[in-house]
Amino acid sequence: MPQKVRIALDAMGGDVGAAVVIPGAAISLKRHPDTEFLLFGDAALINAELAKYPELRAASRVIHTDVAVSMDDKPSQALRRGRKNSSMWLAIEAVKKGEAGVAVSAGNTGALVAMARFCLRMQAGIDRPALAAVWPTMRGDSVVLDLGATIGGDARHLVALAVMGSAMASVLFNLERPTVGLLNIGVEEIKGHEEIREAAEMLRDMNLPQLNYIGFVEGDGIGRGDADVVVTEGFSGNIALKATEGTARQITDFLRKAIESSAIARVGYLLARGAFRQLRDKLDPGRSNGSVLLGLNGIVIKSHGGTDAEGFASAIEVGYEMVHFDLLTKINQMLNRDGALVPEPAA
Amino acid sequence: MPQKVRIALDAMGGDVGAAVVIPGAAISLKRHPDTEFLLFGDAALINAELAKYPELRAASRVIHTDVAVSMDDKPSQALRRGRKNSSMWLAIEAVKKGEAGVAVSAGNTGALVAMARFCLRMQAGIDRPALAAVWPTMRGDSVVLDLGATIGGDARHLVALAVMGSAMASVLFNLERPTVGLLNIGVEEIKGHEEIREAAEMLRDMNLPQLNYIGFVEGDGIGRGDADVVVTEGFSGNIALKATEGTARQITDFLRKAIESSAIARVGYLLARGAFRQLRDKLDPGRSNGSVLLGLNGIVIKSHGGTDAEGFASAIEVGYEMVHFDLLTKINQMLNRDGALVPEPAA
Repeated sequence: MPQKVRIALDAMGGDVGAAVVIPGAAISLKRHPDTEFLLFGDAALINAELAKYPELRAASRVIHTDVAVSMDDKPSQALRRGRKNSSMWLAIEAVKKGEAGVAVSAGNTGALVAMARFCLRMQAGIDRPALAAVWPTMRGDSVVLDLGATIGGDARHLVALAVMGSAMASVLFNLERPTVGLLNIGVEEIKGHEEIREAAEMLRDMNLPQLNYIGFVEGDGIGRGDADVVVTEGFSGNIALKATEGTARQITDFLRKAIESSAIARVGYLLARGAFRQLRDKLDPGRSNGSVLLGLNGIVIKSHGGTDAEGFASAIEVGYEMVHFDLLTKINQMLNRDGALVPEPAA
Repeated sequence: MPQKVRIALDAMGGDVGAAVVIPGAAISLKRHPDTEFLLFGDAALINAELAKYPELRAASRVIHTDVAVSMDDKPSQALRRGRKNSSMWLAIEAVKKGEAGVAVSAGNTGALVAMARFCLRMQAGIDRPALAAVWPTMRGDSVVLDLGATIGGDARHLVALAVMGSAMASVLFNLERPTVGLLNIGVEEIKGHEEIREAAEMLRDMNLPQLNYIGFVEGDGIGRGDADVVVTEGFSGNIALKATEGTARQITDFLRKAIESSAIARVGYLLARGAFRQLRDKLDPGRSNGSVLLGLNGIVIKSHGGTDAEGFASAIEVGYEMVHFDLLTKINQMLNRDGALVPEPAA
């Protein structure tokens, strides 16, 4: 019998906590019955939810803790209050101990990054973690990173992101040598911050076998699918992600109002609703929820804090795939394919 | 008789040049018959286009030059080749000489910013220019800046952007004290680059009469209309703008394909096409084309390089409003309302 995929959940994470996490796990279990869950958090709250999902209860083990990281905790506060004993920490630690293949949390990003870093430690050769997500484009999916784990960074950091991101894209999209672009405000060589131009030069000079560096990509090139992997430091990456989410929401909202304002448009909507449903599914942030924290000795998935059960299930699904396809090992192999992970900075 | 609004056009700017600029001017003239144009560029090309628009020809003066800045010219190249004699330079210079109230160009951003800065010089108290645009939100329009004129910048630069942006918003939206937010990757005080946190502190401490600083705004807060003015340095601003444009295009494209794939959806589309047209108009980058270059002793409008005639007309319209309502003077008054423009950095 093949081994089960074991997933550790921070049942207290997110705006809602167990009332979203547990139903989300139930949805995910239906899709992947070969899953087992470790549920960390307030046992009373968790069991109350589990009572509604007997199958999930049968596939889960509850580990009680009183301590939960709040959405407003600063990373330092979270570490001080929640290290060793919070639901977030314990879920991550289960990965470290090998009790789970992946941890999933909808808790606050800063705390999650800090705890994961503290508990799992950075992979050899990687200095700082990154959040990577699969981004739907007009040409299929791309990997975009860093979406906000690390603010700023030098050329070497950007090169490390390029290598990690293309390893993830290779494995997820089954590509031999994914195309990689650096996010910039123009495609000309002279544009942008110095570290971006320097990273471009490094990537070109290195001509790595595992990635095909294609140059700069502008903000509208992400959604156009200009590259399989789009690389930027965490500030710009987060701005791009949130601006995109905001625009999608704005458009959906506007379209809804425009349709509601006319009876004929409403009839038209009913006829075209298949198309609208496709659009909504495509735009639904829940559908592409779940970023992967890369660069650590273990996989942690960050879910949106404000997600619903469907969205949390989607984040679990990202984690499931990471374990099921043993992506961490594969990414590690990719990273180490040529001996050194990322070149040391030139003297 | 009231004075005409005189607008200088770089007829060679953009991907297409005169074949878009002249029809764009013709559209704009229909909307605002009290306009006169100075058209700078290749007289043969301009006159060939003008022949199609007798009314525009009557309202225009053509000033010939052989030299045009290309879309690929680096700022330094553009200045070397095109200073004093290119269509872009001459249009800007017309503003300096008082022959026109505003210059409009679809030429390359880097060259335009460099030339405008060189020709018009910075306003007293402002160190670096900014591109500001009116951004449609779920709550009405906001001003967003900097969209790419200046990369990076310290806290004082961000404060200057806040002051200029809110002056523009006051005048355009007739607000006494517009709300101002700093773009950041979280709303908590501890988030983001140090200069952003420092600018936040300065804005709070200064408590300026001309703007109401409300805190950090995330990427999705721009489209939600969280603030009347959203301030960021040019790199992130450009990424946010382009990511938004890309998303809008991606969604429109997806919706079109979804509708074309089903006969019933097509019928539905025909019935709901009023709503779709509203959406398209709202999403059409041409409709909100035209950013204002702020911080200089004169107004220059930057149009998208790849715009069509309708889009270029919209950029001219932004320029028309700036002149018609004498926005530069008003912005200057706003800026100088309390004596000093932007505080000197604390020692």
